[in-house]
Amino acid sequence: MKAEIISIGDEILIGQIVDTNSAFIAKQLNAIGIEIHQITSVQDNEECLVKAFNKAKSKVDLVITTGGLGPTKDDLTKKTWCTYFQDELILNEGVMSHIEEIFEKYVKTPILPADKSQAYLPSKSIPLFNKYGTAPGMWMETSECVFISLPGVPFEMKSLLIDEVIPQLTKRFKTPFILHRTVLTYGLGESAIANKIEKWENQLPEFIKLAYLPSLGRVRLRLTARGTDEDLLKNEIDAQIKDLHTYIGDIIRGYEEDLGLEEQIANLLTQNKLTLSTAESCTGGKLASTITEIPGASAYFSGSIVSYATSAKNDVLKIEKEFIEKYSVVSAEIAEEMAKRTRVLFNTDVCIATTGNAGPTKGDSDADIGTVFIAISSRVKTESFQFNFGTHRERVTHKAVNKSFELLMDFLRANLTNLVA
Amino acid sequence: MKAEIISIGDEILIGQIVDTNSAFIAKQLNAIGIEIHQITSVQDNEECLVKAFNKAKSKVDLVITTGGLGPTKDDLTKKTWCTYFQDELILNEGVMSHIEEIFEKYVKTPILPADKSQAYLPSKSIPLFNKYGTAPGMWMETSECVFISLPGVPFEMKSLLIDEVIPQLTKRFKTPFILHRTVLTYGLGESAIANKIEKWENQLPEFIKLAYLPSLGRVRLRLTARGTDEDLLKNEIDAQIKDLHTYIGDIIRGYEEDLGLEEQIANLLTQNKLTLSTAESCTGGKLASTITEIPGASAYFSGSIVSYATSAKNDVLKIEKEFIEKYSVVSAEIAEEMAKRTRVLFNTDVCIATTGNAGPTKGDSDADIGTVFIAISSRVKTESFQFNFGTHRERVTHKAVNKSFELLMDFLRANLTNLVA
Repeated sequence: MKAEIISIGDEILIGQIVDTNSAFIAKQLNAIGIEIHQITSVQDNEECLVKAFNKAKSKVDLVITTGGLGPTKDDLTKKTWCTYFQDELILNEGVMSHIEEIFEKYVKTPILPADKSQAYLPSKSIPLFNKYGTAPGMWMETSECVFISLPGVPFEMKSLLIDEVIPQLTKRFKTPFILHRTVLTYGLGESAIANKIEKWENQLPEFIKLAYLPSLGRVRLRLTARGTDEDLLKNEIDAQIKDLHTYIGDIIRGYEEDLGLEEQIANLLTQNKLTLSTAESCTGGKLASTITEIPGASAYFSGSIVSYATSAKNDVLKIEKEFIEKYSVVSAEIAEEMAKRTRVLFNTDVCIATTGNAGPTKGDSDADIGTVFIAISSRVKTESFQFNFGTHRERVTHKAVNKSFELLMDFLRANLTNLVA
Repeated sequence: MKAEIISIGDEILIGQIVDTNSAFIAKQLNAIGIEIHQITSVQDNEECLVKAFNKAKSKVDLVITTGGLGPTKDDLTKKTWCTYFQDELILNEGVMSHIEEIFEKYVKTPILPADKSQAYLPSKSIPLFNKYGTAPGMWMETSECVFISLPGVPFEMKSLLIDEVIPQLTKRFKTPFILHRTVLTYGLGESAIANKIEKWENQLPEFIKLAYLPSLGRVRLRLTARGTDEDLLKNEIDAQIKDLHTYIGDIIRGYEEDLGLEEQIANLLTQNKLTLSTAESCTGGKLASTITEIPGASAYFSGSIVSYATSAKNDVLKIEKEFIEKYSVVSAEIAEEMAKRTRVLFNTDVCIATTGNAGPTKGDSDADIGTVFIAISSRVKTESFQFNFGTHRERVTHKAVNKSFELLMDFLRANLTNLVA
């Protein structure tokens, strides 16, 4: 089964928002064996949408659209469905009661005609219940294609997709298996890796496809297998990855399946009842916010001292001014002091600290722009590392965050026995 | 001039990454009067790309692609260009020296044949200099259409677009003016606003289009004017917005032009030499990381105490355990204590604090999931506010961050005279 995702909205085409919905939908469909042929973003305009529908239905079996379901004049999806499917809007009583309930419970203002219009749906469509909003999703089948319309508001779309669309699709259609395995490597560029694994890459079977995904300081190798026999695919992909180790085992750091590195760290800490704090200067709160994005973070994460200004390192962490002047605010010594003192303040098993200069100007230190020190402290030991992450501010911070989690994982693995003793 | 953006890469179509490049390109092109007709994401596959090129060139005058320019086998853009334009790859000496320089300075490993292949370009194309990487961009003109190829790595793409593509486009083509003005409102839903401004909306001239953009707790109204006379467009749009105030002046909080609310706050603090700290529980470092994303934050931002665990509020902020037990960790009293104590610790003029329960479980407090208290403290006064942001974890945090910056802006405006006195 092949699908096309169509996101509707001028705000996407003028770059006012990034279309995150399509990636979410693509991932969920892929997980149930539906291949995404294309993602298309079109204007809030009946003609553009009709053209996109016509093109899509000649190529795919499923079209999922997001957006254009609001109560205002610029929302044209239902109107376009009526034109396209030669249908008319009729009142759906169930949707109307849901809208009335939302207004009574949360909105607490009178229901306007525009709000009531949300309960009118194309007569041939099946409504999909939207528990978080007034705009229901819609499902329509023609002889050629299934059309599904979802709201553009991300959390409404997500809930509708997961609770309504995916269960219906798996019940109605038999799809092949699509297996992705992503191998995480670090320390080599993509061309150097390609050179090392050339022989291995050339012998991969037809049904396994390899992709190189370079990002800041990491290259991910993604293997994708397609077929009907799930066991065969799994066995073959496992055997190929085992073989890959004989070529580049030294730079493979793990696998990205459902769990990112930060989630792996979360599990390791929770399982071993270890606690974590962070002390941040150049990362400015990004370590803490990344950690707290994972539900359940309160089981192991106590908090962070973001000592962004130099004065805060003295005011809050009580690092003596003379010490800061002696070593400079961007130094291994300051990173280690930040980690040690924050660990003691929060009374945690481990603390990770960053100090650096992300640019654009040099700030309170003579260190080159891009210099970052990362320190990790526990009662077992305190270590620090120096890096230069280049001259691009956003990239320096991002690389510092990535590297911090890598070092933390290494540290936890190397010292786990002593930490839990 | 109309354009289509084509992003290339299986990683987009399986939802492994979000395509942020297209929004960036769309915004930049729009700013120089180029309208984006469609954004299309296609697979790393010659046939798909050729089809996309054919469809695009029948509708638009400019096609910009991102991705598929890497040194590995899955990167097919240059090969596809050669097929499509009946061209062949030839060595570009300038690009080769640049690659050699990058390897000597940064990569420090031998140059492999795959790296050298980056210097071979379609003979009919004009290379675009990529100062951050080994893959140059490419520019090719046919009688029907301009084709531009950019790398997929975001910071390389951005630098090429800004430094090479935009200047060339503005020099080569005369484009009309596209003016966007976005009015920020808060406190009313989109249907209620639509109802209040119906008369105004109906009298808008043909060349001004209105869009409603609802997001968490805010509705943005975007007016877009297109035409050839820049002054006329500006005057008309200004007059319309002035008129809009007579309908909903009470809920208009400002305008989104180049500056977001956080940047407006940054400017206000810097201009008035005021300093800021944050004390975060449920927002987990997101206030600090949002603030420090803006270059120059060190001029006014001292840092944050992320007291995520209840124990941290005692360990680090020294709020007495009895006090926490008396009022509960999610309360106005705790939010105010967090703000007061953090402000004193960092010695800043203002501190903003959050404490709440984002779910999924209740945690160390009896407060309903979604309850958030936000407090702002200065030597002039300390205030706090209570909210319920619903049951969706990600949304609760996001709304708390948005609301914090709104309240901070209100606080700064209301108390500026006293704060700088």
